[in-house]
Amino acid sequence: MKAHTAYLKFHTDKRIEFVNITKEVERVVQESGVTDGLCLVNPMHITAAIYVNDAESGIIEDYKELLEKLAPYKHEYHHHQTGEDNGAAHLWRQLMGHQVTVPITDGKIDFGTWEQIFYAEFDGQRTKRVLVKVIGK
Amino acid sequence: MKAHTAYLKFHTDKRIEFVNITKEVERVVQESGVTDGLCLVNPMHITAAIYVNDAESGIIEDYKELLEKLAPYKHEYHHHQTGEDNGAAHLWRQLMGHQVTVPITDGKIDFGTWEQIFYAEFDGQRTKRVLVKVIGK
Amino acid sequence: MKAHTAYLKFHTDKRIEFVNITKEVERVVQESGVTDGLCLVNPMHITAAIYVNDAESGIIEDYKELLEKLAPYKHEYHHHQTGEDNGAAHLWRQLMGHQVTVPITDGKIDFGTWEQIFYAEFDGQRTKRVLVKVIGK
Repeated sequence: MKAHTAYLKFHTDKRIEFVNITKEVERVVQESGVTDGLCLVNPMHITAAIYVNDAESGIIEDYKELLEKLAPYKHEYHHHQTGEDNGAAHLWRQLMGHQVTVPITDGKIDFGTWEQIFYAEFDGQRTKRVLVKVIGK
Repeated sequence: MKAHTAYLKFHTDKRIEFVNITKEVERVVQESGVTDGLCLVNPMHITAAIYVNDAESGIIEDYKELLEKLAPYKHEYHHHQTGEDNGAAHLWRQLMGHQVTVPITDGKIDFGTWEQIFYAEFDGQRTKRVLVKVIGK
Repeated sequence: MKAHTAYLKFHTDKRIEFVNITKEVERVVQESGVTDGLCLVNPMHITAAIYVNDAESGIIEDYKELLEKLAPYKHEYHHHQTGEDNGAAHLWRQLMGHQVTVPITDGKIDFGTWEQIFYAEFDGQRTKRVLVKVIGK
């Protein structure tokens, strides 16, 4: 059994930002030498989501509008009594999804036509890390 | 280490349809010969969700009503500027959950009493594929 | 390849209860002897969520308020025609997330600073089980 771990680093300029990381994950899969297995993609932060969907800018706008409708960013959350102002980011990450596990077949990500991996940051403007762990044979 | 991959195919007659795929996943687990490991069940489409919950028709109606309340299907989404009309399906898939990883013990799916695996299609009436990958020993 | 499975047991006193299970999962990882791999944490019930976020009580209050706003607990759900009264719990589990896969590196959970694993029960006051399966080398 092989196992390989990499830590991707991002600096997001905006507080809310969606980054397509499919190519970075593909590179880690190739580095790993795994031809058949699974690849976990996990944000090391709790105000961010890793999700799989289409790389179409309209969908990303639709996600932002939905999240803002369901859990407005400016609302006075209980979490803000700690001095933080990112309560919505903790809620949005749960609604959008937390992490994904990517299948690897013949040494490549085994995806359908439109599947792309995104890092969605909801409290950015800092350096953020994503763990990518590949296991398999 | 063993690894085995199968691609389930469905044709959904309705645009929104919930299909219980537990038996199909169980069959793939048996084919794999894996007695202890993990099984990823991943839709190869971005308008569908794989989730685990009860096989009770009322719950499925409740899911449809909740999703329609949170993100109405007929709304004019940004995504529709591309010519598509399935914006809600991309949102619903994130809210319901994307994929599941199923534990395998003693060669079987290691589930609690009521856990069943569903494929929820939100933009159907076409042939759709689900990847099932089993790894373990 | 190594594989190890444990079943955590909880008795939740309240119907809605959030339990930090990070230490219990860490203990199972140590028992497994796996130094590099993945650990699935899966609730064996369909009215509960396993999720990763901050161990801060205000955030937990914010989650409860969001879930109650999106899917009120007292609503008359279709599922209640079966005699059950826990329809909201089946909805909340999908919105919060179902299960998590935890990376293991150097024999330990490979988390960012604030990542903690929670069991969120939405229909408790009974004994509940969580499956923890570790695979790796």
